[in-house]
Amino acid sequence: MSDPSQLRITALAGGIGAARFLVGLTAILGPAQITIIANTGDDIELYGLRVCPDIDTVIYTLAGCVNEETGWGIAGDTFEFLKWIAHYGEPVWFNLGDRDLATHVYRTQQLRRGSSLSEVTDSIRRSLGVGSRILPMTDDYAPTRVVTEQGEMHLQEYFVRHRAEPRVRSINLEAAKLSRPAAGVAGAILEADAVLICPSNPFISIGPILAVPGIREALSRTAAPVAAVTPIVGGKALKGPAARMLSDLGHDPSALGVARLYSDFIDLFVLDNVDAAMAPAIEDLGLCVMVTDTIMSSFERKRQLAGEVVAAVGKGGFQNEN
Amino acid sequence: MSDPSQLRITALAGGIGAARFLVGLTAILGPAQITIIANTGDDIELYGLRVCPDIDTVIYTLAGCVNEETGWGIAGDTFEFLKWIAHYGEPVWFNLGDRDLATHVYRTQQLRRGSSLSEVTDSIRRSLGVGSRILPMTDDYAPTRVVTEQGEMHLQEYFVRHRAEPRVRSINLEAAKLSRPAAGVAGAILEADAVLICPSNPFISIGPILAVPGIREALSRTAAPVAAVTPIVGGKALKGPAARMLSDLGHDPSALGVARLYSDFIDLFVLDNVDAAMAPAIEDLGLCVMVTDTIMSSFERKRQLAGEVVAAVGKGGFQNEN
Repeated sequence: MSDPSQLRITALAGGIGAARFLVGLTAILGPAQITIIANTGDDIELYGLRVCPDIDTVIYTLAGCVNEETGWGIAGDTFEFLKWIAHYGEPVWFNLGDRDLATHVYRTQQLRRGSSLSEVTDSIRRSLGVGSRILPMTDDYAPTRVVTEQGEMHLQEYFVRHRAEPRVRSINLEAAKLSRPAAGVAGAILEADAVLICPSNPFISIGPILAVPGIREALSRTAAPVAAVTPIVGGKALKGPAARMLSDLGHDPSALGVARLYSDFIDLFVLDNVDAAMAPAIEDLGLCVMVTDTIMSSFERKRQLAGEVVAAVGKGGFQNEN
Repeated sequence: MSDPSQLRITALAGGIGAARFLVGLTAILGPAQITIIANTGDDIELYGLRVCPDIDTVIYTLAGCVNEETGWGIAGDTFEFLKWIAHYGEPVWFNLGDRDLATHVYRTQQLRRGSSLSEVTDSIRRSLGVGSRILPMTDDYAPTRVVTEQGEMHLQEYFVRHRAEPRVRSINLEAAKLSRPAAGVAGAILEADAVLICPSNPFISIGPILAVPGIREALSRTAAPVAAVTPIVGGKALKGPAARMLSDLGHDPSALGVARLYSDFIDLFVLDNVDAAMAPAIEDLGLCVMVTDTIMSSFERKRQLAGEVVAAVGKGGFQNEN
């Protein structure tokens, strides 16, 4: 397991932060060594089309066609479809580009023809030249709902329509809890040489994956080391509402707060330099801690961070300590 | 019936030629006086979306947003969706613009929710500010198939993919023959003050409408005068393959050939000046003939042609002669 060229890594991924980490991981390992289990709790049906924002962000990013400025969507995309469908009185708060729409139309057609989401995801990632296997957490439609001070709503309504502004009271993962894991998901966790939790929101990106029956259990049971990269640095999320959500939901809005959420199944927590002082408290949870620069400000930093994490899990000395 | 401001006109329409004639008709009469029965035999399912090219051409033209150069699609539209869906191995021979796509996605969603094609067509034309009622010939999916020297195929495969190049052996209207007319279609013919057959291809635009059970009978039974405007001038179609199709199917490739196809239910045939010599032969079919300039080269010519036709049917002196 110490030869990185042989390591088989399974990564649990949300959207933008995860995708950027996976770019680094792919640069360190070959894409064929990586299996990605993607959050589909942010999926939404719009205009009768199945939209899978996290899956698409991961695919577009690894395919090199993502819009680097926004982190989502396709570079150079246009929005003529969206402007026109407003004529028909349809809501247009979710940005769907014209190129991006091709992915949703293609996926919806394949699903209606009887393909599973796993199958169509595999077809899309291969078509765009992505070499890593990407497994949706489930083939079922299992949208996350957010209970806010303004009422319960679909995750994307909270996140996009309301710009993550309402205070969050709880996250409703009932649909994920009632879903079945997609074929291969549990196996990818149990048979990996290491499992990585990407730097993603613990409630709305990683949380839905963990809520799918069998997945959290597989993470606890696997003989492989499990490592999580912090999505919180200096008390702030690099992207999105994770810090405020930790606070709203009664957790410490810090890397330590995230480590606590994962402490039953991870072995290693990757902490940012600015949070080094938290290392003892995290070690007190029974976890190993690696302290490094987790800000993926350049391709080189993505590569370095991934390299350090791979080296740590490749050594394997810490697994199954807790 | 002689006051044009009171005339209620029902027009049978295909695509581009019909839409241009209807622009003139709308300029002469108020839009509310006009009911359009549209061909849906050219409808096609693409990428799981229901596309209705003739309905959309009529709506976009009357809404003033049609691409004037091509005669179809939306002015200024882009084609990013189409370019991208090619990545997924989907066929891209049918031009769907990004704005145009909004119409198809909206329509498909409404149909899946249980709306009829009539209902969604009404919603689309109202949304785009079209004041005339537009009735699909049927709410059923009844695509025309063309039997060519290269085999039988969907009309759009013949027309767009093969650019109307293969010789035509026969037109298969079985689906239209098995369909039911949309609500209001027979009534619009029976209760009109005049019925107009727009200058459209008699086989693939008007033919499917006539094949729907009850429509040809309503045209024969109506007390209203029925007039057809020639789609053939000097032996050539202004647009499309009508002339060659007449010839391939054993008919005279001329205005006379078209008049024969309609002679059992029309009262008046509107012939172009260049074909004036054919008037006696058409009169021998028991029809009245009006000879004028039918080339709609400008808005003013569209208006004049429509005005002449309305004046002729408004007089009403010729109906039920044959």
